Amino acid sequence: MGYTREELMAAISAGMPAKRWQHVEGVMESAVILAKRYGGDPEKADLAALLHDLAKFWPIDEQEAIIRDNDLNTELLAYDKQLLHAEVGAFIARWDYGVGDQEVLDAVRYHTSGRIGMTLLDKIVCLADYIEPGRNFPGVERIRELAETSLDDALIAGFDSTISFLLEKHKVIFPMTVLARNDLIQNKTE
Amino acid sequence: MGYTREELMAAISAGMPAKRWQHVEGVMESAVILAKRYGGDPEKADLAALLHDLAKFWPIDEQEAIIRDNDLNTELLAYDKQLLHAEVGAFIARWDYGVGDQEVLDAVRYHTSGRIGMTLLDKIVCLADYIEPGRNFPGVERIRELAETSLDDALIAGFDSTISFLLEKHKVIFPMTVLARNDLIQNKTE
Repeated sequence: MGYTREELMAAISAGMPAKRWQHVEGVMESAVILAKRYGGDPEKADLAALLHDLAKFWPIDEQEAIIRDNDLNTELLAYDKQLLHAEVGAFIARWDYGVGDQEVLDAVRYHTSGRIGMTLLDKIVCLADYIEPGRNFPGVERIRELAETSLDDALIAGFDSTISFLLEKHKVIFPMTVLARNDLIQNKTE
Repeated sequence: MGYTREELMAAISAGMPAKRWQHVEGVMESAVILAKRYGGDPEKADLAALLHDLAKFWPIDEQEAIIRDNDLNTELLAYDKQLLHAEVGAFIARWDYGVGDQEVLDAVRYHTSGRIGMTLLDKIVCLADYIEPGRNFPGVERIRELAETSLDDALIAGFDSTISFLLEKHKVIFPMTVLARNDLIQNKTE
């Protein structure tokens, strides 16, 4: 296997609406900036950001089938459908696009939920997804400001906004996101 | 063993400031109202409410020692100290005050955190703790209104207020509270 960056961009952009592709380009831009700011690997950040939403617009039943048929994390099936594309994206990146870098695959896999013990690359991609230039939700400016000086504080604020949104909408909260946020807070203050 | 209700009231009120005892009396009053409204057992509701905060003003290191020395739920030690008194209260109610009713003890034990699969009595005591007449926090009126017609909706709103508070204060969120809230939502809509 082994796709070039240009081939990946062509394949991935063809699988989503133009507006979502703009978002992906924004996340790539922001992830590279964050990688340079916080000592991450800009090339890995660029690649993980390029891949992160590849399955976002795939039919939900297809995403569910991929998770079920390949023994991926079936716990996700009980939660918001928006969580599925991250798990599916990492799987497709590995097996259809031949991406072998586990750090990149993990950053794709955990970009929506977060996890306990997030790597630098996980944090960069997850935060870039919150703050890329096209994002516009209540509180995004505050997260962008925090991102200038603290990767962890900005990411905590990002998770805060997700959890607040789910509270307001009376929706279930994915436990791993709470654990990820707790972990960031505990490792900051201890 | 076996204390009368009056002996329990005397012992418990002696272990806390007068203002907290007022709160306990308020929770007893609200728990009995909720039990009558939702088909619970008013006597058990009264007893669990009487017991629920018995360890609230005990020194934190003593509470931690009780949890450690008696193999109680040590996971609590990593979270907010306000969670300890519920676990300790249930233990003391059982072994110092001779309360043998497991349903009552569980309602004491889970009155702060909640849990997956909350019993009717768990819900009544937990909600009464949010809405007793002396409570005054942002959103309490809305929870009181919901409590008129739906025990679950009111309790979900109570947990929402706790989680929102912890988000605002940049504090860790006890995962079981999120699981309890998810469980209430999932069992309502499914």
